[in-house]
Amino acid sequence: MTLINSSTKGVFVIACTPFTEDGSLDSASIDRMVDFYYKKGADGLTILGMMGEAPKLTQAESIEVTRLTLKRSPSKPVVVGVSAPGLAAIGELTKAVMDMGAAGVMVAPPSSLRTDEQITSYYRNVVETIGTDVPVVLQDFPLSTGVQITSKTLGTIFEAHPSIVMLKHEDWPGLQKITDLREAEARGRRRTSILCGNAGVFLTEEMQRGADGAMTGFAYPEMMVDVVHLSNEGKYEAAQDLFDAYLPLMRYEQQPGLGLAVRKYILAKRGAIASAAQRRPGAALGALAVKEVEKLIERQARKLELLN
Amino acid sequence: MTLINSSTKGVFVIACTPFTEDGSLDSASIDRMVDFYYKKGADGLTILGMMGEAPKLTQAESIEVTRLTLKRSPSKPVVVGVSAPGLAAIGELTKAVMDMGAAGVMVAPPSSLRTDEQITSYYRNVVETIGTDVPVVLQDFPLSTGVQITSKTLGTIFEAHPSIVMLKHEDWPGLQKITDLREAEARGRRRTSILCGNAGVFLTEEMQRGADGAMTGFAYPEMMVDVVHLSNEGKYEAAQDLFDAYLPLMRYEQQPGLGLAVRKYILAKRGAIASAAQRRPGAALGALAVKEVEKLIERQARKLELLN
Amino acid sequence: MTLINSSTKGVFVIACTPFTEDGSLDSASIDRMVDFYYKKGADGLTILGMMGEAPKLTQAESIEVTRLTLKRSPSKPVVVGVSAPGLAAIGELTKAVMDMGAAGVMVAPPSSLRTDEQITSYYRNVVETIGTDVPVVLQDFPLSTGVQITSKTLGTIFEAHPSIVMLKHEDWPGLQKITDLREAEARGRRRTSILCGNAGVFLTEEMQRGADGAMTGFAYPEMMVDVVHLSNEGKYEAAQDLFDAYLPLMRYEQQPGLGLAVRKYILAKRGAIASAAQRRPGAALGALAVKEVEKLIERQARKLELLN
Amino acid sequence: MTLINSSTKGVFVIACTPFTEDGSLDSASIDRMVDFYYKKGADGLTILGMMGEAPKLTQAESIEVTRLTLKRSPSKPVVVGVSAPGLAAIGELTKAVMDMGAAGVMVAPPSSLRTDEQITSYYRNVVETIGTDVPVVLQDFPLSTGVQITSKTLGTIFEAHPSIVMLKHEDWPGLQKITDLREAEARGRRRTSILCGNAGVFLTEEMQRGADGAMTGFAYPEMMVDVVHLSNEGKYEAAQDLFDAYLPLMRYEQQPGLGLAVRKYILAKRGAIASAAQRRPGAALGALAVKEVEKLIERQARKLELLN
Repeated sequence: MTLINSSTKGVFVIACTPFTEDGSLDSASIDRMVDFYYKKGADGLTILGMMGEAPKLTQAESIEVTRLTLKRSPSKPVVVGVSAPGLAAIGELTKAVMDMGAAGVMVAPPSSLRTDEQITSYYRNVVETIGTDVPVVLQDFPLSTGVQITSKTLGTIFEAHPSIVMLKHEDWPGLQKITDLREAEARGRRRTSILCGNAGVFLTEEMQRGADGAMTGFAYPEMMVDVVHLSNEGKYEAAQDLFDAYLPLMRYEQQPGLGLAVRKYILAKRGAIASAAQRRPGAALGALAVKEVEKLIERQARKLELLN
Repeated sequence: MTLINSSTKGVFVIACTPFTEDGSLDSASIDRMVDFYYKKGADGLTILGMMGEAPKLTQAESIEVTRLTLKRSPSKPVVVGVSAPGLAAIGELTKAVMDMGAAGVMVAPPSSLRTDEQITSYYRNVVETIGTDVPVVLQDFPLSTGVQITSKTLGTIFEAHPSIVMLKHEDWPGLQKITDLREAEARGRRRTSILCGNAGVFLTEEMQRGADGAMTGFAYPEMMVDVVHLSNEGKYEAAQDLFDAYLPLMRYEQQPGLGLAVRKYILAKRGAIASAAQRRPGAALGALAVKEVEKLIERQARKLELLN
Repeated sequence: MTLINSSTKGVFVIACTPFTEDGSLDSASIDRMVDFYYKKGADGLTILGMMGEAPKLTQAESIEVTRLTLKRSPSKPVVVGVSAPGLAAIGELTKAVMDMGAAGVMVAPPSSLRTDEQITSYYRNVVETIGTDVPVVLQDFPLSTGVQITSKTLGTIFEAHPSIVMLKHEDWPGLQKITDLREAEARGRRRTSILCGNAGVFLTEEMQRGADGAMTGFAYPEMMVDVVHLSNEGKYEAAQDLFDAYLPLMRYEQQPGLGLAVRKYILAKRGAIASAAQRRPGAALGALAVKEVEKLIERQARKLELLN
Repeated sequence: MTLINSSTKGVFVIACTPFTEDGSLDSASIDRMVDFYYKKGADGLTILGMMGEAPKLTQAESIEVTRLTLKRSPSKPVVVGVSAPGLAAIGELTKAVMDMGAAGVMVAPPSSLRTDEQITSYYRNVVETIGTDVPVVLQDFPLSTGVQITSKTLGTIFEAHPSIVMLKHEDWPGLQKITDLREAEARGRRRTSILCGNAGVFLTEEMQRGADGAMTGFAYPEMMVDVVHLSNEGKYEAAQDLFDAYLPLMRYEQQPGLGLAVRKYILAKRGAIASAAQRRPGAALGALAVKEVEKLIERQARKLELLN
């Protein structure tokens, strides 16, 4: 069992949860999708996140998705999203998935939090509930949660809880936050891993600011893998050239709510999952949107050819 | 098994969930508390609501609380709060509690809903998920959920879903909403039961506007029972006299967040539960607050004597 | 010209803005209302607050209301609400009203603020904009603004800006905040005046916790005046008896949005203003609400007789 | 005087407000900037919008900015943002700017609105306040206002108020909304102009969905002008090629809050304004951000060369 830690680097793909057309879990597609992600270079996976339709699953289903994913990931770390309205549910699911071999859990703040004190208290309660031996990813996604966490408050939380080893960074704008955190570390604060989200649309700048990689679900994970590698080798121009070829589609896939429909459409098209179906309620991809996505894919392919 | 319906009247006490000092479920106190509520005249109970610390329970605990409460309520209807971020959890818990003999389920809208369309869609999805044979209480509590539902949108939902038989009314201000709904019924829309919340602080006016009773957890349920009876008999002055004697404490218990600590303190003092402990994280009742509550209780007792 | 300071005590009534039936400013009623408030014992006034329909006034009208009120208050301090979306408007209105003789200005935080840093920065910008010689009342009203300010953050702001001399306290629950602030002062932080809002519904407890008085607009200011006096003399039981007689109506007048209609209705009935009209858009008081208010007034009168 | 109407097409640049380093209005730069925008092909301007730092201006300054802009735009329509917390301020500023020759006013909904009824009431009040002869742009920008307006509610508003002639479209995702609105028009509803915002990042798709142009402030307005022209000629591939060259910078400039600093930096660099200074409080562009922007500009220039 591999645990994530404060030095973890690379690309953790936010996995979707495959369903059949009638809305039941598609176990076969889980295997296929997991293989697909690793084949495209993923260093690990994150399941049951917001894009994993986690709230639409029963607890038994969440555990089944975890079991299947872990089974198919014998040598790769899998982080499991355990965000829930109450600590009891977080504690219960965390215990279940860590016992099964998860690499850590991801926790976003509930949208009711406002003050810095409420936010730091919340993560103290989380760590006390799940125990200090479980590696935690703090998901900082104000656009979705409505909770704004300053660099300073993040620092307070990181200092108090060594088991919070990673930041899933998706504040927007968020580049300065990476710089702030790395500067604080340069002044002596313990290191945390920073993997970036936001559908990847700032990945090139994020890597240069000091991020360790990406944790998001863009349907072409190979882009993230290559941009991270190129950036680590200092080949920033090449990274940006590659990034730019994918950006028009990334931008389209980043649309809140609709993005998952786009992502599943592409994953199905690429053969990673059998169906683009979302469990109800899920935004449908209209005919015009399909046409737009197809056009973007076609243009993207042409640009990639030019790069090679 | 008694189901609630669109003619249900009376007082359904929002039950708290008793814990021991160490935060575990206090089963013995559940029995004692349920007996206490019925002895004070409750016509039914509502468990696992916001004041029942529902999000702090694991699903197994939620089911255990339901089982114990139902067992102790052989002839009374018990409504179970099943609000959750996702439909799957709502469906799963609903099935479990209805199979055990619950009288219906209560569902509050998730705080992400904004437009009228989103709200009506949400309840359509809920009804499709749990089936049209389960009686539903729609909880309309904007102060807590952030979701504002107009009288007109409530009407649209009621017309579309006959299984939504009751409104837990706690909009604030909310008196006009009762009038609006009853007037729409007078013009031909099917009737729904309206039980009122908001800690009871508008119960006298609500009854005169056409409410069917109360569904809230004030620690002196006998006040609600008597006010409802007196109102039904047209004895509005007597109802208001009684109400006024309790109002200073009601006002204190209505404070958001802190209110549950006050309520549990009083219930423990009255012998309904063994401990006022809340499961973490719960607001503590400071020494000054205890003193204030004791003073209010003492004054309330004196006023009630004067009334008799 | 009297300025408010960190020792200011007593009752500052939040004044409404009188309009004629056609929505124009009613200058004659301003005189009458100001006289009424002082006759009932007000120590000062606060104009152009949320209940003063300030956002419905043009800047010229705001200045006219201030001019008329100050002219009618030769020996009493008048605080002016200057909250606005931008610093320029705050600075401009502050300069105008202070030049005319206002006793200070009141500033609520804009609803976009979230983190402690954003809140402290905001008040730093305000003080820099208006100058350190203008006494400021910080309005802490999360129910309306959506901005939550902890006791600690208030302390940070008070320490940084001696010109912020008063807190308009209306957090809910808010009693512990008064205790926190007074304890911090006991440990050495400079004193600030604390006048309480929330329509007065916690005034008795607030006074015992260390508040200096009230700043709210309940239509019977004599209640606030007497409760503050009795509390200052240590006659807490008498204060509470008086308070309880008014509580049923206070509770009704506290309803968000609708409260102003109730308040203006009563002020018109008491002869303080000529018309209960609000400038558009304003919530109307329906026939049933009028009946409810009249009933509460009648019962209140009877209770007050019993007290005397 | 040219008024906008329901057939208005083209690119209306959202103008920034130029300040000198000390924060005072830079009148000379207003002239220079206006000339710059028209030289780059703008069909009109929109001033005093969110990106125009409108809330930081006094009313006198707002009128001065309008006067200067109109004077420099003898033959072009200028829309003026008049959003304010109250109707009186909206009415006052609207009268002032329309008298001076503005082409129309833009009004965003206040962030307190929630239900469909509240939103439709708000625009009814606005139109009643300013009169039915003033052309109105309804700004639909939920990311910033927090107010979600469905296609259906937009339709209700458009039908009720013929003077609302234009939608500033920046819902996100928002492509389906354009399709919905155009389909409703095809079924018989009167036409409204749709100009798109969101920093331009969906302009190509928006034009194909039926938008009439752009209304946003990207620092290279020539991109928007060319994309709109190419789209109108059916040259979608060429439009997309051009768009893609600018997208990496557009994406960077779209960052909420920070975007204005980027925009002003580039406008100053391009000679359109003398200084990138924002009036306080304004987000600063750090050294690393400057470096990132410069890199993006350089790469953009190279890509544009390849296109020609």
